Amino acid sequence: MSATDVGTGKGAVLSLRFENGELYLLDQTRLPGEVLEERQESLGQVFEAIRSLKVRGAPAIGIAAAYGLWVGMRSHTALALPSYLQELEKGAAYLESSRPTAVNLSWALRRMTAFARAHAREAGSAAALHALLAEEAMRIHQEDRAICRAIGEAGLSLIGEGSGVLTHCNAGALATSELGTATAPMYLAHACGRRFKVYADETRPLLQGARLTAFELQRAGIDVTLICDDMAAFVMSKGLVQLCIVGCDRVAANGDAANKIGTLSVAILARHFGIPFYVACPSSTFDLATPNGDRIVIEERSPEEVTSFGLRRTGPEGVKVRNPAFDVTPHELITGFATDRGLIRPNFEQNLARAFRA
Amino acid sequence: MSATDVGTGKGAVLSLRFENGELYLLDQTRLPGEVLEERQESLGQVFEAIRSLKVRGAPAIGIAAAYGLWVGMRSHTALALPSYLQELEKGAAYLESSRPTAVNLSWALRRMTAFARAHAREAGSAAALHALLAEEAMRIHQEDRAICRAIGEAGLSLIGEGSGVLTHCNAGALATSELGTATAPMYLAHACGRRFKVYADETRPLLQGARLTAFELQRAGIDVTLICDDMAAFVMSKGLVQLCIVGCDRVAANGDAANKIGTLSVAILARHFGIPFYVACPSSTFDLATPNGDRIVIEERSPEEVTSFGLRRTGPEGVKVRNPAFDVTPHELITGFATDRGLIRPNFEQNLARAFRA
Repeated sequence: MSATDVGTGKGAVLSLRFENGELYLLDQTRLPGEVLEERQESLGQVFEAIRSLKVRGAPAIGIAAAYGLWVGMRSHTALALPSYLQELEKGAAYLESSRPTAVNLSWALRRMTAFARAHAREAGSAAALHALLAEEAMRIHQEDRAICRAIGEAGLSLIGEGSGVLTHCNAGALATSELGTATAPMYLAHACGRRFKVYADETRPLLQGARLTAFELQRAGIDVTLICDDMAAFVMSKGLVQLCIVGCDRVAANGDAANKIGTLSVAILARHFGIPFYVACPSSTFDLATPNGDRIVIEERSPEEVTSFGLRRTGPEGVKVRNPAFDVTPHELITGFATDRGLIRPNFEQNLARAFRA
Repeated sequence: MSATDVGTGKGAVLSLRFENGELYLLDQTRLPGEVLEERQESLGQVFEAIRSLKVRGAPAIGIAAAYGLWVGMRSHTALALPSYLQELEKGAAYLESSRPTAVNLSWALRRMTAFARAHAREAGSAAALHALLAEEAMRIHQEDRAICRAIGEAGLSLIGEGSGVLTHCNAGALATSELGTATAPMYLAHACGRRFKVYADETRPLLQGARLTAFELQRAGIDVTLICDDMAAFVMSKGLVQLCIVGCDRVAANGDAANKIGTLSVAILARHFGIPFYVACPSSTFDLATPNGDRIVIEERSPEEVTSFGLRRTGPEGVKVRNPAFDVTPHELITGFATDRGLIRPNFEQNLARAFRA
């Protein structure tokens, strides 16, 4: 059974599709109200889709950019090779500027341009090189699928028959190419016919849990219950949760993990109730050059995200606000990491170095 | 210095005012966008104000109903005494039906009707009895002011100079007559010139922290910072919080305390970070006939509160939802109770019985 066979099930949605030489991006800003895929026709359109968060989640952005660069170059295949390469570099630099801090974005674009430079001579023409580049973009896509699947296999045994699983934010299919990271064990367990319930924290302020996680799990036919963030302790206290699993933005060498704001809260509650707390992430998330979480700088975002929602103001005019985008969960609160290189358990300092040091 | 002298400071708002024989209710459904007081002209208008949550919070509802009953009886003062009493009973029953489960509502209305029956003969006429009833309503109001002030005095020493205080939901002036319960120590500390910061959880799903607590503290000139519920662990982890204090709906004989959903989460986080966690409430909240929190039934509210935010839908159509209105914080997580009979510390079983058993 290949990753494509499992997928996220019937009725499931994909963040992006590349079919018959056409790139389709799901406009995630319209979720959960509207499911709308947009065919991408130009670099400008892809730039705008990334900038405006129609496509979001590090892996998905990288893949969208790789395909998007290829789409943008379609009109240049009649050029001489050196001009094609020049346009390619220009296009990549332009797309990279759509979200300057997204590491996967520049990684994917650099991989595409480096591949083009390396294979230009062998290809012989812009048209031939363009064809090779489509394959490279598909490899980037396929590699992400395989990574998500490996994470899913690593975490599959954590989800017991009849159990409850709590997650925070969206580390799901919509953030990646297919199975997601924190959701990958859920999709695989569901495909195996295992019965379990998922509790999805809505995840204020941007509500990715409500808008995305609850949406994608529901579409995939998984039994998901949406709760407000301040209800997590309640459902745990009622014995409804046997596993917490979340995604992650960056893991330090000692296992301290930075993820969406609110993750620390879930980890502390899980410890209080004796519930295992796992972090699911690909190898690329482990930053062994950063010794511990104290060194991870937390981005503070706009106060308006906290004082309003949609068009409605919820907090008083001019009130002070804290709006950290992430928090750091100390390694002592983490039971293990579900990664594309298997389950990693403490001692993290040692075991992460063994698994991920080049 | 009387309670009225301290109040909630210049610029502060009151949930209700009774002045020159007129009752004014603040329409809290319009907060924080609009501050609008409505003069109450009839029983029907007061009924509607209570039913539609323009006035909310157990003590405030009771006081509003007492005054409201009086306002509704103004047109009956020319009646014979027995007819006046009959109308009074009818009016009280009508107002009581506006929120059938609000204990303070029926308590205040029964106190008014019992007072009328007890003093009818001595008054001699409907007009004279009506005048006495105004005084009884003012006594109910004044008693609540005094209770809030006593809670404030009990909790005042908990707020250290330069400290950070975290609260959840609204147990503030807007829920009572003046100083609130959880906010009473804050208002008194502020009046004493003590400098401190308050972190107000927004309190999903109904956002009482954002709409009411942040609003009333800001109006009173207290340094308040609004955060999302899932940011409480973050601010605690940064050493910004030295005290958690919340209100309460019901306390069992062993000290288990039912309060707004999310309170349990705050208590567990506070324990994790070694921060004292206090519950502020009047004597009437202690229900010594209920042995422990397991016996407290938790109301589950409408899913729409969770799947939407303001007027905007946030969760997918048809998704399952849990929406418990309250949770129970076990007594082991509670450092103490700030009450109108002073600070109560463990052993709660013993000390609550000593303080509150009739």
